[in-house]
Amino acid sequence: MDTVSTNKAFGGVQGVYKHQSSSTGTEMTFSVFVPEHEAGAKLPVIWYLSGLTCTHANVTEKGEFRRVCAELGLIFVAPDTSPRGEGVADDAEGAWDFGLGAGFYVNATQEPFATHYQMRDYIESELPALIAEQFPVDPERQGITGHSMGGHGALTISLRNPGRYRSTSAFAPIVSPLNCPWGHKALGGYLGPDQATWAEYDACALIDGGARLPDMLVDQGEADGFLAEQLKTGLLAIACKKAGQKATIRMQPGYDHSYYFISSFLGEHLRWHAERLAG
Amino acid sequence: MDTVSTNKAFGGVQGVYKHQSSSTGTEMTFSVFVPEHEAGAKLPVIWYLSGLTCTHANVTEKGEFRRVCAELGLIFVAPDTSPRGEGVADDAEGAWDFGLGAGFYVNATQEPFATHYQMRDYIESELPALIAEQFPVDPERQGITGHSMGGHGALTISLRNPGRYRSTSAFAPIVSPLNCPWGHKALGGYLGPDQATWAEYDACALIDGGARLPDMLVDQGEADGFLAEQLKTGLLAIACKKAGQKATIRMQPGYDHSYYFISSFLGEHLRWHAERLAG
Repeated sequence: MDTVSTNKAFGGVQGVYKHQSSSTGTEMTFSVFVPEHEAGAKLPVIWYLSGLTCTHANVTEKGEFRRVCAELGLIFVAPDTSPRGEGVADDAEGAWDFGLGAGFYVNATQEPFATHYQMRDYIESELPALIAEQFPVDPERQGITGHSMGGHGALTISLRNPGRYRSTSAFAPIVSPLNCPWGHKALGGYLGPDQATWAEYDACALIDGGARLPDMLVDQGEADGFLAEQLKTGLLAIACKKAGQKATIRMQPGYDHSYYFISSFLGEHLRWHAERLAG
Repeated sequence: MDTVSTNKAFGGVQGVYKHQSSSTGTEMTFSVFVPEHEAGAKLPVIWYLSGLTCTHANVTEKGEFRRVCAELGLIFVAPDTSPRGEGVADDAEGAWDFGLGAGFYVNATQEPFATHYQMRDYIESELPALIAEQFPVDPERQGITGHSMGGHGALTISLRNPGRYRSTSAFAPIVSPLNCPWGHKALGGYLGPDQATWAEYDACALIDGGARLPDMLVDQGEADGFLAEQLKTGLLAIACKKAGQKATIRMQPGYDHSYYFISSFLGEHLRWHAERLAG
């Protein structure tokens, strides 16, 4: 692991790092905020998965999470959203909703994507091991959140790994790739046409299939232009209700899909996670 | 005035606006955050002047000011740092420390810069009138702050306009353009070689010459790579001590010149301003 940059912020250290990933076969960049802490302490960690087009940088610059992480003693990790670099396949037309910046947190099975797009392994296994090795995290106290495609990532990864994350939340998540154009394009492209293989990457389908979380917190802006066609928060509410899955799903009037929305509520999410990661 | 964008954030509205400026003869863009407030209320306003290379966007995206502005009921205005557009003169070699993005908050007297680089008039007169007309600000309750070149702008504008700003602070300001390479290049280029004309754009020289503020708050990172050669905070401390000017100048160990530094302390500055703007 190489250090790209470190900056002191809110008494802690905001770092950006890169490493050669065995999952993706590429160099991967991520950011980690480590608050000031006592020597030898192991801190709870929050995973933040970003949305379409993003790298680690968007939330690192615009998320406004450091003040609360410093106050609560939380480590905050922000990975990239896809493999990148020479030889990494992209959308045939260079569209922003597939390929680079749009890995959808899946292990692709279809070429040319299968070669590098192994983001599920990267986020579920490889990066957590690296973070545990390099940073003072307590692996027993992990929470996960994310935005849009990353909200989909947070929900599905947590649902597939019961007990791994003690807290799960999301901002404007894509709740059901099986039921939206972004999902059909991405899962069709990465996994092929057999929709049976998509279900493990669909939060609603996982809940329908019996996966459970202790609780979840979801915020969704009512003025979000992607709500009706892509995000479809209502499907998650229906799936949770039908399954008896505890969930706090809040519609936020006037808020859109931007980091102005995320930053307005990320502090509150962090406090919600910290309560569940205490002790 | 045209609206470029508005986004709901922390219960208020973060807007970006543009207008044709009579001072600069160009279109100018600025951002304004207006917190939620009672109909008819007039709110105190904080002016934030940005540093070299910046537009309104840097602090708007990375400053982390909205939460505290929403809490305290402060309007936050972030102007651009120079005229821009076709026909606006730039540094001959396109350097980042002069010309575009580097107006230094002066009225240029030297061509080709005098034609558009009238940033003093723009910030001191034209934009305040527009803001007072278009937003619910209380002109009796204005505070000013800024970063680096913008810290220089905040200090000098406030020192030259006694009583206009009830509170003045700065992050890593250029405290004496007369005594640093950035200042010599900029003031030489905009005002010509006669250094007597530079003094009204030099915080230390203004204080030496008798200008006074009720108080000032300055934060400076000790790990700031520009401190020794360009910023020279020590000169401000000396000038204030010599003149009996009340000032709180804080050296912050480990902090650099970036928005990671600014965002760590901007909330504290806003509270300091709000105390002085109350009532």
